[in-house]
Amino acid sequence: MLANIVLLGGVTLLGVLEQAYFSLQVIGARRKYHVSPPSTSGPPEFERVFRAQVNCAEYFPIFLAVLWLSGLFFHQGIAATCGLLYLFARYRYFKGYSASPQGRLAPMYLNAGILWFMIGLSAVGILHVLFSHFLELEVF
Amino acid sequence: MLANIVLLGGVTLLGVLEQAYFSLQVIGARRKYHVSPPSTSGPPEFERVFRAQVNCAEYFPIFLAVLWLSGLFFHQGIAATCGLLYLFARYRYFKGYSASPQGRLAPMYLNAGILWFMIGLSAVGILHVLFSHFLELEVF
Amino acid sequence: MLANIVLLGGVTLLGVLEQAYFSLQVIGARRKYHVSPPSTSGPPEFERVFRAQVNCAEYFPIFLAVLWLSGLFFHQGIAATCGLLYLFARYRYFKGYSASPQGRLAPMYLNAGILWFMIGLSAVGILHVLFSHFLELEVF
Repeated sequence: MLANIVLLGGVTLLGVLEQAYFSLQVIGARRKYHVSPPSTSGPPEFERVFRAQVNCAEYFPIFLAVLWLSGLFFHQGIAATCGLLYLFARYRYFKGYSASPQGRLAPMYLNAGILWFMIGLSAVGILHVLFSHFLELEVF
Repeated sequence: MLANIVLLGGVTLLGVLEQAYFSLQVIGARRKYHVSPPSTSGPPEFERVFRAQVNCAEYFPIFLAVLWLSGLFFHQGIAATCGLLYLFARYRYFKGYSASPQGRLAPMYLNAGILWFMIGLSAVGILHVLFSHFLELEVF
Repeated sequence: MLANIVLLGGVTLLGVLEQAYFSLQVIGARRKYHVSPPSTSGPPEFERVFRAQVNCAEYFPIFLAVLWLSGLFFHQGIAATCGLLYLFARYRYFKGYSASPQGRLAPMYLNAGILWFMIGLSAVGILHVLFSHFLELEVF
């Protein structure tokens, strides 16, 4: 049933749009600071924008994995809400890191906290299905 | 029903094989230009192949996300066809970037165009399910 | 049915935890070798840990794709078992690469072998569904 995954799909699509936005910011920074591909070295202002985008891209598959695991095995609405918070924290991380290395820290901790919370939801949901189905125990 | 996702699965598998091919090209370029791990700096010929592969790898999760969203929420056959076009454009991007920084531009715009089209299909499909299920409106 | 994907979900979650562990190792190496963000250059000891993490992160979406394809289209239990082996080989790769460039080679070949095996399982499963459903042939 598509209704059981439509909120997860919507948050995934917003995440894709956010990654597209970050990529466009790097293209803009390449022009502004005259860093032509394939080089990725330049003034610290450029390297912060570049590294912020790389970090967000690196965490994107991890985010999608825990979004869908927590949504499928725990609760779609709670997972989608956490996902929206995560995307907002990622936006603040990108803006903060672009301004200064210190500026990335507070949103980075927020991002990590939300991810760990979603990992916890996923673990509870997966263990519940494992126990109730394979061991025929009803623990909840 | 596996038949509802088998074309998406097939395109995903072709995408995995393409990424494997790009990775093998980087290993070949490391040998040819004598760039030993963990270094990623070398002559521009090496750095173009390396950056082309990194860029393709970075977009791979984004591609998979919109392939499956547009396939699940809009239409499997249309999404799979767009996916094949994207993989072909990625191959041309990799070859073009390996030859020169300018050579990556035309296929890059083609890639971006296909991705935006699939984002549009996904958005239409997701909004349709959201409206018809949660608001009980039949808008299409 | 969640029972049909719960083992895949469990292995995915373990993979997320492994990636989190690798990220924490890079943060530790940044402190130990005094490499402050956004820089990613430093002594070879740091660059090996950094590149090991980047390589694992780059393969993570590819791994998830073949884990779920082989689990959905071939057999969940076999796919999950291969997935656990892959995560173990990735751990050995990370530790080996952190110690020396040569130390990454044996687990790298093991990782690649497991991935190719899972690609083969996925291909068999996808072709089976394609032939039996779309061509109405029973080939197995």
